[in-house]
Amino acid sequence: MINQLVSKIKKTNAPIVVGLDPVLKYIPAHVTEKAYKECGETLEGAAEAIWQFNKEIIDNIYDLIPAVKPQIAMYEQFGVEGIKAFKKTVDYCKEKGLIVIGDIKRGDIGSTSEAYAVGHLGKVQVGSQSFYGFDEDFATVNPYLGSDGVKPFMAVCKRESKGIFILVKTSNPSSGEFQDRLIDGRPLYEIVGEKVAEWGEEHMGNSYSYVGAVVGATYPEMGKVLRKVMPKAYILVPGYGAQGGKGTDLVHFFNEDGLGAIVNSSRGIIAAYQEEKYAEFGAENFGSASRAAVEEMREDIAAALAGKK
Amino acid sequence: MINQLVSKIKKTNAPIVVGLDPVLKYIPAHVTEKAYKECGETLEGAAEAIWQFNKEIIDNIYDLIPAVKPQIAMYEQFGVEGIKAFKKTVDYCKEKGLIVIGDIKRGDIGSTSEAYAVGHLGKVQVGSQSFYGFDEDFATVNPYLGSDGVKPFMAVCKRESKGIFILVKTSNPSSGEFQDRLIDGRPLYEIVGEKVAEWGEEHMGNSYSYVGAVVGATYPEMGKVLRKVMPKAYILVPGYGAQGGKGTDLVHFFNEDGLGAIVNSSRGIIAAYQEEKYAEFGAENFGSASRAAVEEMREDIAAALAGKK
Repeated sequence: MINQLVSKIKKTNAPIVVGLDPVLKYIPAHVTEKAYKECGETLEGAAEAIWQFNKEIIDNIYDLIPAVKPQIAMYEQFGVEGIKAFKKTVDYCKEKGLIVIGDIKRGDIGSTSEAYAVGHLGKVQVGSQSFYGFDEDFATVNPYLGSDGVKPFMAVCKRESKGIFILVKTSNPSSGEFQDRLIDGRPLYEIVGEKVAEWGEEHMGNSYSYVGAVVGATYPEMGKVLRKVMPKAYILVPGYGAQGGKGTDLVHFFNEDGLGAIVNSSRGIIAAYQEEKYAEFGAENFGSASRAAVEEMREDIAAALAGKK
Repeated sequence: MINQLVSKIKKTNAPIVVGLDPVLKYIPAHVTEKAYKECGETLEGAAEAIWQFNKEIIDNIYDLIPAVKPQIAMYEQFGVEGIKAFKKTVDYCKEKGLIVIGDIKRGDIGSTSEAYAVGHLGKVQVGSQSFYGFDEDFATVNPYLGSDGVKPFMAVCKRESKGIFILVKTSNPSSGEFQDRLIDGRPLYEIVGEKVAEWGEEHMGNSYSYVGAVVGATYPEMGKVLRKVMPKAYILVPGYGAQGGKGTDLVHFFNEDGLGAIVNSSRGIIAAYQEEKYAEFGAENFGSASRAAVEEMREDIAAALAGKK
């Protein structure tokens, strides 16, 4: 799957992943109203609104990008109905040829991590049959529990040719509270990054590993260091756009081959129609606004990478 | 909710939480066969088997214990159907008067943690209505992202009088890989423990905080230190029984008042009928075997605590 991701990034010339994190306030009134009319102001209605919103955006951008990253929390908040909308979204994105990175940030002790890995990336056995649960292509994983918590994901990735991105340095303001603390003179995120490189050696694709890393765009200097610590890890970079990361900040996350990073934008794309810049599209055409925002993001990153050369 | 947990622990004289982590191989053949006959060897069939298994166990032990801890991964592995069984289990346990600790180990950047908090402990707004998603009483939280990731859970806990348990030192063999690394001469888990104490001050119950901690029974010496670092945090102690933790190891997790810790056992209780010790019950009476295992665990802990005095 990492080889497919690299090849799709080259083909689209867009190291971009769109975060499908549908908050109700991002969804235009005509979409929510229609959903509530059909299903009521209920959890089912919210899930339907989310699904219709996602579908319209996907239909408008699927040919421009290699991958999407649905954030499961935004679905899970609506309980079982939300989880159904998550699954529907994953399936539809795959139908449209997109690679799906499940932003699930799971991680637990061995046997429990195995259950998460099986449910999100692999097949679960039921009697003589086996079934995919959610069937994403990649998943994000929290490393706090150490190798025990990561290895079961790797085992499933090997069986299924799928991949993971491990949280190394997250994009949020307080990520430094633990991640930046010095251990033998080096920050924890570097220690975790080294582990990611080590784990990654065990499951290599053609030029990059099936084990990638999450490093926030909001910390470009740390990205620079981590790029060297984990040369073969694809870096999933959240924090671009709404969270404050700029195109010029991103160059450090890429390797000399122009590859090695994929930048996420969520709100900046899916709620583009709410920005002044794209207001001309109007709420009715929110999908087209999202398309324009993807195109601009692609140019912004290309310009920054051209400046690097 | 922390006051209710303390009062239920006193009333049952059982600082015990039963982990409802139903792996299919723990479920007696007569239960899975019945479920597969009704729903087929499908995800739905597996979910039905899990639910019937849980129900029988709950019916047999609910009067002996204060709380249960369903591990959501074990449900999530069966996709949407599994999540439905999780919700059904949470609801049923609450109906039977049990406190439900959702072992979800979630944690993300601010707005995303808020969605998890709302979905698992709080209410989500849909138009003019609001709904509980999963509605557990407590949730476990991963601290790797720092205060940003924890505070939204605390905000919901304050609104709903619910609580969290933050991963401090986990029970698995490789937990030391990052958690034991020294920062200014002290291990990371201690630094996290200090933060738990600090966060906990912000949301106190009568004598204990709504912000608790997870510390593995497999590391009693560290438990001893952490008990002092976080005197007002209830400690959720996994790792007893099947993972190797013994009754005598547990004394360090309790305060002088005989409170402050709640010990989890999963496989040791729910799959008790598979152990030689309880084999006499037979698979048909797996619920009674679980009841006997709870009674023995209660005595084991009581004896250990009596030895402390």
